[in-house]
Amino acid sequence: MGIEDVLSDLKKKIQDKLPKGITISDLEFEGPELVIYTVDPKAFADNGDIIRSLAKDLRMRLVVRPDPRMLAEPELAIKKIAEIVPAESGVTNHYFDTETGEVIIEAEKPGLVIGRHGSTLREITKHIGWTPKVVRTPPIESTTVRDIRRYLRNVKDERKAILQVIGKKIHRPITSKEQWIRITTLGGCKEVGRSSFLLSTPETRILIDCGVSTGAEANGTPYLYVPEVSPLSNIDAVVLTHAHLDHCGMIPLLYKYGYEGPVYMTPPTRDLMALLQLDYIEVANREGKRPPYESAMIRETLKHTITLNYGDVTDIAPDIRLTFYNSGHILGSAIAHFHVGEGLYNVAFSGDFKYEKTRLFDPAVNQFPRIETMVMESTYGGMHDMQPSRREAEIDLQNIIRRTLQRGGKALVPTFAVGRSQEVMIVLEEAIRKGIIDNVPVYLDGMIWEATAIHTTYPEYLNVELQDMIFHKGQNPFLSSSFVQVDSQQKRQSILADPSPCIVLATSGMMNGGPVMEYFKQYGADKRNTLIFVGYQAEGTMGRRIQKGWTEIPMSTEGRTDVMRVEMEVATVDGFSGHSDRRQLMEWVKRMDPRPERIITNHGDENKCLDLASSIYKKYKHETKSPMNLETIRLI
Amino acid sequence: MGIEDVLSDLKKKIQDKLPKGITISDLEFEGPELVIYTVDPKAFADNGDIIRSLAKDLRMRLVVRPDPRMLAEPELAIKKIAEIVPAESGVTNHYFDTETGEVIIEAEKPGLVIGRHGSTLREITKHIGWTPKVVRTPPIESTTVRDIRRYLRNVKDERKAILQVIGKKIHRPITSKEQWIRITTLGGCKEVGRSSFLLSTPETRILIDCGVSTGAEANGTPYLYVPEVSPLSNIDAVVLTHAHLDHCGMIPLLYKYGYEGPVYMTPPTRDLMALLQLDYIEVANREGKRPPYESAMIRETLKHTITLNYGDVTDIAPDIRLTFYNSGHILGSAIAHFHVGEGLYNVAFSGDFKYEKTRLFDPAVNQFPRIETMVMESTYGGMHDMQPSRREAEIDLQNIIRRTLQRGGKALVPTFAVGRSQEVMIVLEEAIRKGIIDNVPVYLDGMIWEATAIHTTYPEYLNVELQDMIFHKGQNPFLSSSFVQVDSQQKRQSILADPSPCIVLATSGMMNGGPVMEYFKQYGADKRNTLIFVGYQAEGTMGRRIQKGWTEIPMSTEGRTDVMRVEMEVATVDGFSGHSDRRQLMEWVKRMDPRPERIITNHGDENKCLDLASSIYKKYKHETKSPMNLETIRLI
Ligand SMILES: [Zn+2]
Ligand SMILES: [Zn+2]
Ligand SMILES: [Zn+2]
Ligand SMILES: [Zn+2]
Ligand SMILES: [Zn+2]
Repeated sequence: MGIEDVLSDLKKKIQDKLPKGITISDLEFEGPELVIYTVDPKAFADNGDIIRSLAKDLRMRLVVRPDPRMLAEPELAIKKIAEIVPAESGVTNHYFDTETGEVIIEAEKPGLVIGRHGSTLREITKHIGWTPKVVRTPPIESTTVRDIRRYLRNVKDERKAILQVIGKKIHRPITSKEQWIRITTLGGCKEVGRSSFLLSTPETRILIDCGVSTGAEANGTPYLYVPEVSPLSNIDAVVLTHAHLDHCGMIPLLYKYGYEGPVYMTPPTRDLMALLQLDYIEVANREGKRPPYESAMIRETLKHTITLNYGDVTDIAPDIRLTFYNSGHILGSAIAHFHVGEGLYNVAFSGDFKYEKTRLFDPAVNQFPRIETMVMESTYGGMHDMQPSRREAEIDLQNIIRRTLQRGGKALVPTFAVGRSQEVMIVLEEAIRKGIIDNVPVYLDGMIWEATAIHTTYPEYLNVELQDMIFHKGQNPFLSSSFVQVDSQQKRQSILADPSPCIVLATSGMMNGGPVMEYFKQYGADKRNTLIFVGYQAEGTMGRRIQKGWTEIPMSTEGRTDVMRVEMEVATVDGFSGHSDRRQLMEWVKRMDPRPERIITNHGDENKCLDLASSIYKKYKHETKSPMNLETIRLI
Repeated sequence: MGIEDVLSDLKKKIQDKLPKGITISDLEFEGPELVIYTVDPKAFADNGDIIRSLAKDLRMRLVVRPDPRMLAEPELAIKKIAEIVPAESGVTNHYFDTETGEVIIEAEKPGLVIGRHGSTLREITKHIGWTPKVVRTPPIESTTVRDIRRYLRNVKDERKAILQVIGKKIHRPITSKEQWIRITTLGGCKEVGRSSFLLSTPETRILIDCGVSTGAEANGTPYLYVPEVSPLSNIDAVVLTHAHLDHCGMIPLLYKYGYEGPVYMTPPTRDLMALLQLDYIEVANREGKRPPYESAMIRETLKHTITLNYGDVTDIAPDIRLTFYNSGHILGSAIAHFHVGEGLYNVAFSGDFKYEKTRLFDPAVNQFPRIETMVMESTYGGMHDMQPSRREAEIDLQNIIRRTLQRGGKALVPTFAVGRSQEVMIVLEEAIRKGIIDNVPVYLDGMIWEATAIHTTYPEYLNVELQDMIFHKGQNPFLSSSFVQVDSQQKRQSILADPSPCIVLATSGMMNGGPVMEYFKQYGADKRNTLIFVGYQAEGTMGRRIQKGWTEIPMSTEGRTDVMRVEMEVATVDGFSGHSDRRQLMEWVKRMDPRPERIITNHGDENKCLDLASSIYKKYKHETKSPMNLETIRLI
């Protein structure tokens, strides 16, 4: 049975289930979706539940597209849309794609364009023929989001062709009679960095994450040259848990070396990934290192990206369904859950996760329809890796900043652009709003502003309280007037010259370069100021040295090296980590439902991975394993 | 640095070490050997130790060949050889190869042609120019040995070309900077049958064994389709531990699917392997099953076979040296020991082994220069898998046969052709010689005679006592006049019709077909006769049923099915197994020197592999592991 038979079978099944008079003109696969072409788009729209119940019956993601003859003229369509959607939706743009019959509507409040269960969307289809897709107008202008959306519109024809090829591969008939499932560890085991796993069955090969160890001189790349992943063109799909470089840094390299398949991730992960990958090669170039790929390969990655929201159950291979679940670590971060075969086996990869409610996110999910093996991170898996609660950390931070401002000083917080910066921003906004700390400007320098803009584009990925504040109370903390973007050297100079108290969040988080160093040079000699570490400082970084108490710091300015005396207060606030601490890791496993048979630990120093594995075995009696890189574990 | 640089480096090194006046005209690699061409073969021969000390310095296997101009005419050479070697050598044939300058001398007593430390060989070279190689004239004519030797002479040009390609690959410069060693399990884990492992480094892939599960309907073949061994042409070498089909049965398939490299084994393993593989496809054809390969692929295997004796340390890849050690299981059976890198790591695969002195073999070796990981068989690895000693088994067998013969009966022993048959033959020869049992004929039917002939071709592979008997006492038990070959249906009929007492050894060992069935039909109804099982009877075989006490056996003769009543005595003699029992397995590990860090168990039912592994861990504290098929274990 070939793919054509699969399609004609499906056509018959669908036609049987449709009310009389609704006809299908064509069917085709586009990536994981089945596209139904019809001359009666209005009829589909009239029967709101048809698609939902068809999708459920077929266990497939369905899209209905109008026959091109049914499409209204764009100008007319724009007028109609404006009549249908409420004025408060704030529609800012329309993009018509005659190839797919889709109109992308960019709006400030996408929910109002969608309507309850998609009722407004169907209303639009009924009147204009076009299939509307809605995206949010970022409330803070994000160049990343704008550039990615524009790029994807520019390559839409090529992308459609790619999706058709992918679609045929996903829905190919299963040929193998053997049954086995294996995990091969390609990186990130007994270490942090270059995370990568291969999940394989007789039918399919899935790569989960493909990170880089940015610090490493050698061994920065996962073991992509071993036969298990050769040739790369034999891989069916790449699945990305989240946008940090230790998980996504080497994905563009796959396209450089012959991979042509899809990469699945959540929508915010896509945008953050592109931001961080571009920064990665820019930093490498600036430091005179040859980056392993060029920006063209990042665009290639975007061209092959298929986004899935949390909870979307999606066929990504003939025998594998993928579902993403919130992992509470950074915006869009996900646990990747794989259902293999029809009820054969379930395995999930936690990626990085936080099992505690934070200002930004709900705690990581640990309830799954089924789960036999969980591959989990162990960053803080050691016996003594306990951290203060988020609440304690917040109070700590507020106290330090309050006393700094009260003595007329400036608070300088080195942070990475994604995740911790936004957590700290929310805390500061509340503290200022409630008068706990003085109302001073909070300057955001480096990529923080851009990363924040991406956060505001996807409020659905924030926790319920924050969504409630944004959607129902009209109070988006990120839009607070306290936050000031530092978007030019001139602006930075004026801030550096200004003697009044303020707060500065600047990259990089470990003070090995980035704008934070300019503030440090300026503020370091004044006892009233405070340098506040909110994240882990790796051994060998400038941040670590200062944290350890070095007071004489060699600094090179324009080729000259001066020794700088640190007079400012140096403080460390623990508890803002995006990773679960030891207690949270154990609790997450304990409360997992259903109970998995086996736990595989990774993403941590060797002793952390081993300690966590043996503690879980001793306490909860799961079979556990802490593999090295380059091992293959048979699950079934 | 390419292979040409390697060779010119070597040439310089060798020339530096040679006495003045001896010159090298050319150097080339042939398989693992370095061939030195010289116009002074006599000078090399005069300086007996040159080659040995050169080989030691270079850590390479060396061969010196005369420049073709230096070769005497064959007729003259034959006359000279006859003058040099003692008359008792019993030279039966000469084969001259002008391509290599080699003359193969077939002699009844090869040792006399070789002389002490090769002195007679060098004497021959000095006089005729040709390089002599000596092989034994089988004292019992073996068609297998004759056919293989003839075949290899016929394809010698092609074989030389193959060896040159292999030689270049083995000595290629190492390119990878990574360091890791992995074992991938492809078959024979938690099961008996289709044994196969992949040993891999960044530079090299070695396949150890490639067996077949003959009983299996599906899953008879190792997992050769997985990416770790794809394409097969990327494998550097195949190494075979011994000739049983569960270890060698699928090697010809490798050549069918694109493998073109060498397969290393001991000389007796080569001949037994060809015998058993040919029988395997013949039986399949007879039973109307399609064999997985044709005899042409067995010839292809022979063409690529490189034989190594126990103890020969041989480069088989740029970073791997192989040494075979006696495993005491069957003729030529070996433990394959791999030295990886220069002192980096040592791992060995036991194959099947017997850790007890038997009539034929010395106990399996467990002393190695170095050993970090041992992969060992677990056939009798269960807690209660104890067997009587070989001595007890022998007495048991003698008693049963004595009482059978004394009451005028016949003793019928179903056995497999290789291994147990020859053990039983030695016991019977001694018992008859010493008058413990009556002097009756011992008929050998099926492939037993042929397998015995191969045993007599390689007495160096038998234990010291047996060698002593054969070489120094001129008493080869296999040549006893008690043994009678059954080589025709007519002969068999006359034996079946003869009423006098006798002993019959016939295949197959589990009574699922073969000539043993004809004797059983004839002898089964007479109470004076005895059926004696000396080997394991697998569940589902006719042998197992009779052993369990079935007395009414359905037998089909020429399409008709009759029920046969078994009246003959049925006896089982335990203790003749070629496998170590539980106690021997444990002792072998305990006394291993040096102590390996890790033991990996395989080749046994799941519970045997697990039980043995956990017992070794508990008792001796080695790290142990019992992998499933399709796993990859990282050693370093
Ligand atoms: Zn992360
Ligand atoms: Zn990570
Ligand atoms: Zn284990
Ligand atoms: Zn064997
Ligand atoms: Zn075996």
